[in-house]
Amino acid sequence: MYNLLKGKKGIIFGALDSKSIAWHIAERCYEEGAEFILSNTPAALRFGSLKELAEKTNSEIVAADATSMEDLNAVFTRAMEKFGGQIDFVLHAIGMSLNVRKNRSYDDVDYNYYTKTMDISAFSFHKILQTAYKLDAIKEWGSVVALSYVAGQRTFYRYNDMADAKALLESIARSFGYIYGRDRKVRVNTISQSPTLTTAGSGVKGIDNLMDYSDRMSPLGNATAEDCANYCVTLFSDLTKKITMQNLYNDGGFSSMGMSQKAMHVYNASLELEKIVD
Amino acid sequence: MYNLLKGKKGIIFGALDSKSIAWHIAERCYEEGAEFILSNTPAALRFGSLKELAEKTNSEIVAADATSMEDLNAVFTRAMEKFGGQIDFVLHAIGMSLNVRKNRSYDDVDYNYYTKTMDISAFSFHKILQTAYKLDAIKEWGSVVALSYVAGQRTFYRYNDMADAKALLESIARSFGYIYGRDRKVRVNTISQSPTLTTAGSGVKGIDNLMDYSDRMSPLGNATAEDCANYCVTLFSDLTKKITMQNLYNDGGFSSMGMSQKAMHVYNASLELEKIVD
Amino acid sequence: MYNLLKGKKGIIFGALDSKSIAWHIAERCYEEGAEFILSNTPAALRFGSLKELAEKTNSEIVAADATSMEDLNAVFTRAMEKFGGQIDFVLHAIGMSLNVRKNRSYDDVDYNYYTKTMDISAFSFHKILQTAYKLDAIKEWGSVVALSYVAGQRTFYRYNDMADAKALLESIARSFGYIYGRDRKVRVNTISQSPTLTTAGSGVKGIDNLMDYSDRMSPLGNATAEDCANYCVTLFSDLTKKITMQNLYNDGGFSSMGMSQKAMHVYNASLELEKIVD
Amino acid sequence: MYNLLKGKKGIIFGALDSKSIAWHIAERCYEEGAEFILSNTPAALRFGSLKELAEKTNSEIVAADATSMEDLNAVFTRAMEKFGGQIDFVLHAIGMSLNVRKNRSYDDVDYNYYTKTMDISAFSFHKILQTAYKLDAIKEWGSVVALSYVAGQRTFYRYNDMADAKALLESIARSFGYIYGRDRKVRVNTISQSPTLTTAGSGVKGIDNLMDYSDRMSPLGNATAEDCANYCVTLFSDLTKKITMQNLYNDGGFSSMGMSQKAMHVYNASLELEKIVD
Repeated sequence: MYNLLKGKKGIIFGALDSKSIAWHIAERCYEEGAEFILSNTPAALRFGSLKELAEKTNSEIVAADATSMEDLNAVFTRAMEKFGGQIDFVLHAIGMSLNVRKNRSYDDVDYNYYTKTMDISAFSFHKILQTAYKLDAIKEWGSVVALSYVAGQRTFYRYNDMADAKALLESIARSFGYIYGRDRKVRVNTISQSPTLTTAGSGVKGIDNLMDYSDRMSPLGNATAEDCANYCVTLFSDLTKKITMQNLYNDGGFSSMGMSQKAMHVYNASLELEKIVD
Repeated sequence: MYNLLKGKKGIIFGALDSKSIAWHIAERCYEEGAEFILSNTPAALRFGSLKELAEKTNSEIVAADATSMEDLNAVFTRAMEKFGGQIDFVLHAIGMSLNVRKNRSYDDVDYNYYTKTMDISAFSFHKILQTAYKLDAIKEWGSVVALSYVAGQRTFYRYNDMADAKALLESIARSFGYIYGRDRKVRVNTISQSPTLTTAGSGVKGIDNLMDYSDRMSPLGNATAEDCANYCVTLFSDLTKKITMQNLYNDGGFSSMGMSQKAMHVYNASLELEKIVD
Repeated sequence: MYNLLKGKKGIIFGALDSKSIAWHIAERCYEEGAEFILSNTPAALRFGSLKELAEKTNSEIVAADATSMEDLNAVFTRAMEKFGGQIDFVLHAIGMSLNVRKNRSYDDVDYNYYTKTMDISAFSFHKILQTAYKLDAIKEWGSVVALSYVAGQRTFYRYNDMADAKALLESIARSFGYIYGRDRKVRVNTISQSPTLTTAGSGVKGIDNLMDYSDRMSPLGNATAEDCANYCVTLFSDLTKKITMQNLYNDGGFSSMGMSQKAMHVYNASLELEKIVD
Repeated sequence: MYNLLKGKKGIIFGALDSKSIAWHIAERCYEEGAEFILSNTPAALRFGSLKELAEKTNSEIVAADATSMEDLNAVFTRAMEKFGGQIDFVLHAIGMSLNVRKNRSYDDVDYNYYTKTMDISAFSFHKILQTAYKLDAIKEWGSVVALSYVAGQRTFYRYNDMADAKALLESIARSFGYIYGRDRKVRVNTISQSPTLTTAGSGVKGIDNLMDYSDRMSPLGNATAEDCANYCVTLFSDLTKKITMQNLYNDGGFSSMGMSQKAMHVYNASLELEKIVD
């Protein structure tokens, strides 16, 4: 609507279906004038509805396992071919924990799963950056964004090893952001987004109540996938050229709250009830 | 250039001359379609060149001491009159320390000056917010930004009581941001900007070398006043609606650095020299 | 019990009665072998029971308004006289907000009260440090501690302008900690303590429920005044010589929590109830 | 000297030779009355001088690869046997990067090495905690500490993938600290230590100059291994029972510094020289 990304080319990793944050980001990037390649794993391509998004946004889909350097090489090479040179932006919206899926609690993790969580949810970001860096695939003042969550800083009951993955992801953004900024003027940031009901997240036990809590704690309420897409557009645009190595909260204020009136109201009601029951 | 602020109205406090960050912000807001009132103290209006900016941006100037509730009330009332109702954004770019000016070091501050530093550089932000809140002067999803510096988190030799003022300013952004967000959906943030050579700052001893250090430490170099203006435009726009209570670094990566190759190179050269001299 | 503070001399500001954290700190310092002067305002001396503590700990009381440089000068001068030279430690446990007391909410503060809150709760810490520094009253490797609260970083409903005061207090600890460390090897830190039911705090509306929430959020539960006293002893001891300019959480883990099972359990019960009622 | 750890039993992982921080911690724990098992890899036992420490501190050595659940199980089982039940404290001082050793820069890491860095330097901490938790090997109010570095928060040129490992290590301390605190009242923290010249570190290029910089930036100078040992004793003692999930800086103030007079002095000398040379 503003042509903020007119002429910009990119790669968007991790859109699955219309609930995905990456899906909304792709739609908004398209509206703002960007062209991009969509990438996800072969399995995700089968089960999701990425073709619909590709058609809507006039994009090409390239299947890739983001933990495979070969696959990543192929995605970036294809992007440079298609767009006739370097690209402008990359989105990493990838995360998965087998410990969570298989109900292995954090004091009983399977270490093969744990390594996989890290590989899929965090190492993959390093691999994307290293691939792009080696191919010199991103233009000066290009922008790379990965999606994170405040669990990287504070512990949330049940978030399990994904918390460690997010802390690692944010560290990779800093570590590689330094090098990519210094050598090629490319910026690397993470958006720490409110809990968002994606297809992946909707299976997590208790997610509804956590989202309610998060919403009442946040003075502006939870940020939605659309909010995230709008924010991401600004980070891919030319208006944020000197922002790098940051973890940026798009969360309605949650991260700066200790206790809100609204959340305390709910909490208090329960305490009152306890007293009656006692 | 993108019409990001088309139709938006605001107040910009603290522009003095063409070196001011607020000056650049005003210019960019104008380019993006905003209308605004410019405000500064009567003294600043005499010594600066604000009229030039007012003409360029088709703005009105309203003199005000930002520590005076009466003056602030007058500015906001005039803005609502002029714009026919609530406004969309406010910029606070106000800071001054008499201890710095009079060369009183931080272990020898004059407490009248110290209180003045806080009043001018931090309390004024609360006063602006309280005035706006009481007059209900800002629209839903409006945006308030104040300029800060990383000295609010880490100690810089010679930054003196301005460090405390910035820490307080950022706390006020959180404290009032909670209330203003909860009650009126208005967001409040601070931009923590690279050191920038303004007329106010250029008198500070050693500022050149500090800026050199900061520049070499930051993988993308220091953010300029223009960079800050671009960033500020995104924060006043509708694309960042759920960002609030944040301190946002526009600093080329400085805040996330421990030591860079470039800065260490300079440091090392001096160490080598020492060895030779010894 | 360990003789950790054997031979050490100090000044303890802010003990009022047996609920005061400073009271517990004084008792533990005494047990660990320290001697000290107790100081509070003349009004506090009338209403509190400081004499009892003085007798128990074999201490002298010196009345002082910690916002008065004259009074502070007198306290430090008396301490150096009494102890025959420089002292080893200082505790600042001082805080008060007239806006809180008079029920002026944060969006309707009285600015005289606000300035007073800052002066009593934060500037006083600078004044104590500047007095000590000018009199060279603290030995090399001496230790200064002030009590703070996590509201300095995150917003708590109703904590009002005390949040800003704590943010400022912590900034002063950093700013003066740099100078005092560099010039005299004295360390300056703040302890960010769990909410604690003191006589001052017990009047605050809703404090019980907030303490319940904080307790269930903290994996180890709220830290008590005794816990704080024990911790403070380690910070005054010779075992923590290189810790300075830090804000140290003594809070059972609260500051690193996003959501705990126990707190969520209470919250959930209320949500379930809502659904039934709807 | 204070009997702070009288009667306490523990396990110390990672002492190699007299330059190791863990070595100093073991010595101080011994002086304070603790008994413990020393553990390191079979290779480390061959090349280091751990026997000397074992004799000095009347300890037993148990060889273990801290990435092997079997080995860790054996160490904890042996400790419980030897000490007749649960132990009181655990130290994790383990870190190694093959990317650093083999001069693979962070934009050219070998992913097998990268995974190994994470496994040895961070996953091992989770494995130790999970082993202890499953065996219920640590007493109520026991204490676990791991050694970290500020590179977990800020990027240091050449620190490479160890930065990511430290960020992950600190996240594990929070994640497991929540569970271990909630279920067994055991606290888990990391000490973020000044750069220290250990045998492992002394091979790193440019470490001397970085330590010089760090020393001049820190108002109290770099914390030594002895300083760390003293601090660690307080964290293993009964005086810090409610401190958990924290990353605690033992660094002479470095982490709270932006720029010091002393470091700037060195930097300036080099800038002056440049001007002369130009």
